[in-house]
Amino acid sequence: MLIFIGMGLWDEKDISVKGFEYAKKADEVYIEFYTSRMMGTDLERIENLIGRRITVLERSDLEENSKKLIEKAISGDIAVLVPGDPMIATTHSVINLEARLRGVKVKIIHNASIFTAICGLTGLHNYRFGKSVSISYPHGNTVSKSPLNVIQENWSINAHTLLFLDLHPEPMSINEAIEILLQADEENILNGCYSVGVARAGSSNPVIRCDRLENLKKIDFGKPLHILIILSKKIHFTEYDCLKEFAGSPEELRYFVI
Amino acid sequence: MLIFIGMGLWDEKDISVKGFEYAKKADEVYIEFYTSRMMGTDLERIENLIGRRITVLERSDLEENSKKLIEKAISGDIAVLVPGDPMIATTHSVINLEARLRGVKVKIIHNASIFTAICGLTGLHNYRFGKSVSISYPHGNTVSKSPLNVIQENWSINAHTLLFLDLHPEPMSINEAIEILLQADEENILNGCYSVGVARAGSSNPVIRCDRLENLKKIDFGKPLHILIILSKKIHFTEYDCLKEFAGSPEELRYFVI
Repeated sequence: MLIFIGMGLWDEKDISVKGFEYAKKADEVYIEFYTSRMMGTDLERIENLIGRRITVLERSDLEENSKKLIEKAISGDIAVLVPGDPMIATTHSVINLEARLRGVKVKIIHNASIFTAICGLTGLHNYRFGKSVSISYPHGNTVSKSPLNVIQENWSINAHTLLFLDLHPEPMSINEAIEILLQADEENILNGCYSVGVARAGSSNPVIRCDRLENLKKIDFGKPLHILIILSKKIHFTEYDCLKEFAGSPEELRYFVI
Repeated sequence: MLIFIGMGLWDEKDISVKGFEYAKKADEVYIEFYTSRMMGTDLERIENLIGRRITVLERSDLEENSKKLIEKAISGDIAVLVPGDPMIATTHSVINLEARLRGVKVKIIHNASIFTAICGLTGLHNYRFGKSVSISYPHGNTVSKSPLNVIQENWSINAHTLLFLDLHPEPMSINEAIEILLQADEENILNGCYSVGVARAGSSNPVIRCDRLENLKKIDFGKPLHILIILSKKIHFTEYDCLKEFAGSPEELRYFVI
């Protein structure tokens, strides 16, 4: 059996009691920090909590060499610890599919994801988020337009956009992400739009700030991981109240309340 | 301090190690089953795991009488256990805001939510979901058009729709939800659309089925909780591969692959 165990958002104690028990009993335990990171802990602390030696998987172990992992799971119980909730990353769902096509049972032990955690941190309503999208580091001089397209699509249905920031080679900061967005924005569609930056979700010192995109760019959010939200053109009054209290949003945001 | 502790999706062991520790140390421990349910456990099993007496909160304790809870949290550490990830329900974010306006520190211990768990169960890509919406039981002869409007908005940007099913007075089944949707659909916009039903996410026996909406209506998904997804008009080829393997989708779904 292949057991994907979500590790949650921040440190080793975000694992569920069920995940902990499965990791303890498994024949072999692996972990990957490729699809996301656990900034509040490290391998040693995770090994100490579980009481097991844990092998770190590289990108290639999850992609072109994923067969090896699947083959081990034919005869034994293989636990793979992953940051956040497993299967948000398509990398995991491809392994899930391959394993099941080979007749290997796959178990998923779910955990917290930034995707829902941001609602608690910002007060934004979950049901008002549209499609999410990633911001990648530019390849040479080419900056992807795809985040801008998704933001516009979401605006057309009055929805917020969650932007995941690139992790490779190093976790991208909110400031870098805004720089990349503005660089791609030749038609100036982002001019004056409101945004929310969230740093270190799940930790005891998250930073949450709401402002116009150009102002947010100047704020120091501190250590990673960071994520960015572009607000829809209309917000709910309880979203306004929460953003004011939780994210220090400017007074003029009230003109955007439905 | 007011500590919202997510309980995850299914049973008492879905609580995180951190949530468990906070619940153990708190001055008082409460739980609510109003915004969602834990179908794989009961109060007694949760009390046994935590090793504490736990008081069940009613709807009114979370809404008109939420001040009482906040007042207790001025002088002591009050833990409130909630199914899923806290703050997905606006009920919680209102208490969060009220507490902070009263100067009470609020801590959120995140956990798994159906919102991201469905990606692992169905193979659908998280970033291809649009806005979500709830289906309520009809009030008299009035059936809300709002789910249909959201489905159409999401279709306009090629996104899937996650539909949360009403819990009161009893958890709604996928079959009832489809019946209500079709009743509201006077213009027949749902005709021939594809959908995915998921029952008992987080349990060891989830049922996941993908078919045309009218066919899904005839399937017995068994015990609650149920949720329903309306697919976008185009799906990614890996979504197709996963739906075929995980949800027994019909061959003809391949015509919808991008």
